[in-house]
Amino acid sequence: MHSIYQYQNFLSDYLQSQYETKEPRNLYEPIHYILDLGGKRIRPVLTLMTAEIFNADYKKALPAALAIEVFHNFSLVHDDIMDDAPLRRGNATVHEKWDLNTGILSGDAMLILAYQYFEQYEPAVFRDLAKLFSKTALEVCEGQQWDVDFEQRDDVTIAEYLKMIQYKTAVLVAAAMKMGAIIAGTSIEDANLIYDFGLNLGLAFQLQDDYLDAFGNPETFGKQVGGDIIENKKTYLYLKAMAFSNPDDAIELNRLFSIHPEDSSEKIEIVKALFNSSGASKATQDAIHDFTFKAFQTLEKINISDEKKEILKDFGERLMGRKV
Amino acid sequence: MHSIYQYQNFLSDYLQSQYETKEPRNLYEPIHYILDLGGKRIRPVLTLMTAEIFNADYKKALPAALAIEVFHNFSLVHDDIMDDAPLRRGNATVHEKWDLNTGILSGDAMLILAYQYFEQYEPAVFRDLAKLFSKTALEVCEGQQWDVDFEQRDDVTIAEYLKMIQYKTAVLVAAAMKMGAIIAGTSIEDANLIYDFGLNLGLAFQLQDDYLDAFGNPETFGKQVGGDIIENKKTYLYLKAMAFSNPDDAIELNRLFSIHPEDSSEKIEIVKALFNSSGASKATQDAIHDFTFKAFQTLEKINISDEKKEILKDFGERLMGRKV
Repeated sequence: MHSIYQYQNFLSDYLQSQYETKEPRNLYEPIHYILDLGGKRIRPVLTLMTAEIFNADYKKALPAALAIEVFHNFSLVHDDIMDDAPLRRGNATVHEKWDLNTGILSGDAMLILAYQYFEQYEPAVFRDLAKLFSKTALEVCEGQQWDVDFEQRDDVTIAEYLKMIQYKTAVLVAAAMKMGAIIAGTSIEDANLIYDFGLNLGLAFQLQDDYLDAFGNPETFGKQVGGDIIENKKTYLYLKAMAFSNPDDAIELNRLFSIHPEDSSEKIEIVKALFNSSGASKATQDAIHDFTFKAFQTLEKINISDEKKEILKDFGERLMGRKV
Repeated sequence: MHSIYQYQNFLSDYLQSQYETKEPRNLYEPIHYILDLGGKRIRPVLTLMTAEIFNADYKKALPAALAIEVFHNFSLVHDDIMDDAPLRRGNATVHEKWDLNTGILSGDAMLILAYQYFEQYEPAVFRDLAKLFSKTALEVCEGQQWDVDFEQRDDVTIAEYLKMIQYKTAVLVAAAMKMGAIIAGTSIEDANLIYDFGLNLGLAFQLQDDYLDAFGNPETFGKQVGGDIIENKKTYLYLKAMAFSNPDDAIELNRLFSIHPEDSSEKIEIVKALFNSSGASKATQDAIHDFTFKAFQTLEKINISDEKKEILKDFGERLMGRKV
């Protein structure tokens, strides 16, 4: 087994080896630009790691890992257009640096390029990977659409919210791991179990993202703390707070989530206090714990050595401790 | 063998049979909307027809045919955003009827759905179809990017223009036919020959589209005659006219292709006169004839009965006569 850092380096080297000066440059330059912005590459690392966990050479999993990473970046390029986001990882987004049309078209090309990486596998594996990929990619689109729809709604339930983040975020983590299992040729049972592990870990990760957005350490979180509150995003914290609050607090929270004050620092403080006093913060931490625990429970059922279970558990703990 | 009209009906029935009320509705309704706007469905008809030409049941080719049609409509949805087009087949475009984000996201989902149709084939066929599809889809993106790039350039050559329309239009016609051959299990040779037939026919078709845009019958052309001239689109006619004109006419043509008069009728008449006097009209008709002839020559080499060659030739002639 290799370390996360080693996997990140393998991916980076493999990515660079795939670049060729393809024409038209205006289509391919934005693709290299967004891929080179980096990030932690958690999803493709999980593909490599899972392949090794199931006794395959990580090298065999590199094309699928890159497919996952290219798809993830495709979704970032198109989401950034939809969110009108100027920055991604501290740099200009593709549609800002180039223009709207370049963002759309380069994104489209990335989605196709992702499929092409699977062509390096034999037909039966190719089919399994492409099938899982299509299912997952469509779910990510559906999740994104739920997210857009929820902005216009005042009656989103906790169950609907969990389904949205499952589709928008968790299924890709799950699929990234299952691909490693498919490439290693595990039993269907183990492949499905590792999918469930990834799904629950992905849910825990996204809920923690919601939590840290309000209560994280500005030094280490990476994004602007309070960003969701400023943008009136109805996250798990908000939905739980609305469910738990007395009528007066609920009205106040609802009002705060309809305004955009120039200086948002006071709003952020009041909202955070309401998240705490309502019990929403606690409920969110409990949910994070529950999904992480569920992931680790699933791990127990997988037909691998205790040592390997420990490696996956360690990854999960580091991920939740934001130390990846 | 069936008639074109029958193939169109088979496709329409199959398309309807695929619809299910999937959630989120805001993602799937725009997809059904654009697919239901119809059109002549030339590409998927060619997939069905080619399958039958090579002795397979057309039914076997329905999923691949629909993949082609869904992909074609995906490209229309995203192209209409890039061209800021309000109308498609006389109806509001998706981004006009809904909004930009819906256009982007529904388009993305259509690209993925297209891949999913191939899952109905056995692994080796699935792989061949998906591989051809990815290659083709990427070329269509490249063609669209060339088209966008060419708008900013004054030195586009005829060779570059032909490459652009080959990628943007002809490869999809070619791939639609080759898929029929793959599904029928022909020799690689025949599959490649039918691809070449489709490619040359697609080039002839697109050049004829350029020609008819200026000189077509407004009653039957379907689009606004003179549309390319109004939008200063540098089509084959324009490039040939610039190449053939004396310096004075070239300067005048260049000037006319930089203005947007409120009443464009006079501009259209002058440009058409220059297209004729320069010999560009004749050169375009010659090129259309040459590509059609090349397609029919390729046909001769294919290992099928004369009767079947006649069916494909007849289709080609009807297509070029705009009677499909």
